[in-house]
Amino acid sequence: MNNKRLDASLDVGLIRVLTSNDQYFVDTHGRLIMENYPGINVESICIPDQWEGIHDDETLAKALPKIVEAAQGFADKDMILVSCADDPAVDMIREEMPEMPVTGGGETTVAMALRYSSRVGVIGITDRPPRAYLSNAEGKIALYEKINQVNSTLDLLTDEGKRGVLECARRIKEAGCGVIALACTGMSTIGIAGLIERETGLPVVDPVIAEGAFAYHELIRKKYRNTGD
Amino acid sequence: MNNKRLDASLDVGLIRVLTSNDQYFVDTHGRLIMENYPGINVESICIPDQWEGIHDDETLAKALPKIVEAAQGFADKDMILVSCADDPAVDMIREEMPEMPVTGGGETTVAMALRYSSRVGVIGITDRPPRAYLSNAEGKIALYEKINQVNSTLDLLTDEGKRGVLECARRIKEAGCGVIALACTGMSTIGIAGLIERETGLPVVDPVIAEGAFAYHELIRKKYRNTGD
Repeated sequence: MNNKRLDASLDVGLIRVLTSNDQYFVDTHGRLIMENYPGINVESICIPDQWEGIHDDETLAKALPKIVEAAQGFADKDMILVSCADDPAVDMIREEMPEMPVTGGGETTVAMALRYSSRVGVIGITDRPPRAYLSNAEGKIALYEKINQVNSTLDLLTDEGKRGVLECARRIKEAGCGVIALACTGMSTIGIAGLIERETGLPVVDPVIAEGAFAYHELIRKKYRNTGD
Repeated sequence: MNNKRLDASLDVGLIRVLTSNDQYFVDTHGRLIMENYPGINVESICIPDQWEGIHDDETLAKALPKIVEAAQGFADKDMILVSCADDPAVDMIREEMPEMPVTGGGETTVAMALRYSSRVGVIGITDRPPRAYLSNAEGKIALYEKINQVNSTLDLLTDEGKRGVLECARRIKEAGCGVIALACTGMSTIGIAGLIERETGLPVVDPVIAEGAFAYHELIRKKYRNTGD
């Protein structure tokens, strides 16, 4: 007999794809998840030498092997999150570590957004929506808005970046979309989802909050697996 | 100023598509959600004259207008769950009540299952998988197993029904699937997901637990919308 039912917890290894020497900054997504989802312990690391994160094919290709290596370092965790809307290397980690639950910010955001509406507006920093937005919401992306003057997740941290996000949100509202899916975890870092909701009245899906919902589901699954209730 | 950040809660209206005069039985799914997801208050009702639930086209057609009517009675709730793996009338409710978040047991289960593997095994009671399993996991359902001798959700409540579920699970394991998605909320009612996990070693997605994860996400979304944090 055990009492895991009562003290259920889940150890998550979270991989940031934006390099920083500031561990408090690296921990931002993990903190957001722990503030909102009880019982989840997040340890965060960032991959090295990726000072502008992932924002095009070149920065993506460079990042993939580094993300897989980071995941291998989290082999003792209950779950791995690749905290990026492009879900980089998520498929590769699933292949290499088949017992390890792993997901990313893109596919979880899309899964959430489609529960609100089949007319999805997407706000991102890249020329095209990240892969999961294209493949998992095929035919349901009514509008994609790239934020003006923003080319990497760092630009989102400026006032101009925030204004750019709100301009995109207004255009999505005017186009008659039923939900806004954010397509860069930098928008989670600046915590702008609530503000967009109040400005537009539309539900907004934040990638890090979406990742957390799937982690919380995994915590409950672990609890049932261990107790037989 | 308000303090909703601290006492966040979400009022959910849950619609059962299996008629019962026993409110404790009607409340089973809601209890399961409230036991696992803090801050969620569920009020459950069942639609009338649907004594065998929904298990074919005829019982589905009969149920649809009754589900929409039940949803209209929940207009004051924060969210509506149609607690059935066929997601009956979910699209219709979205159309009629565009401001109301609504989802069902099927599309939430599929969304969860695809985060574990793209080789999904499905266990159900109908001749074909429910709609969301076909449309949202296209090409990723590696095996569908209909439970022997089980034709409606009521048959699942018997010992033979439970044995049948475990036989399906073993065949799915042998076929090399990476995850098991349950396709009838009757399997949530009998609480068999944990047992299947221990028997097969595969992750199992329970429809009512999956619904709850999306409701919990909605609770957090509501909190951010109201507080601006």
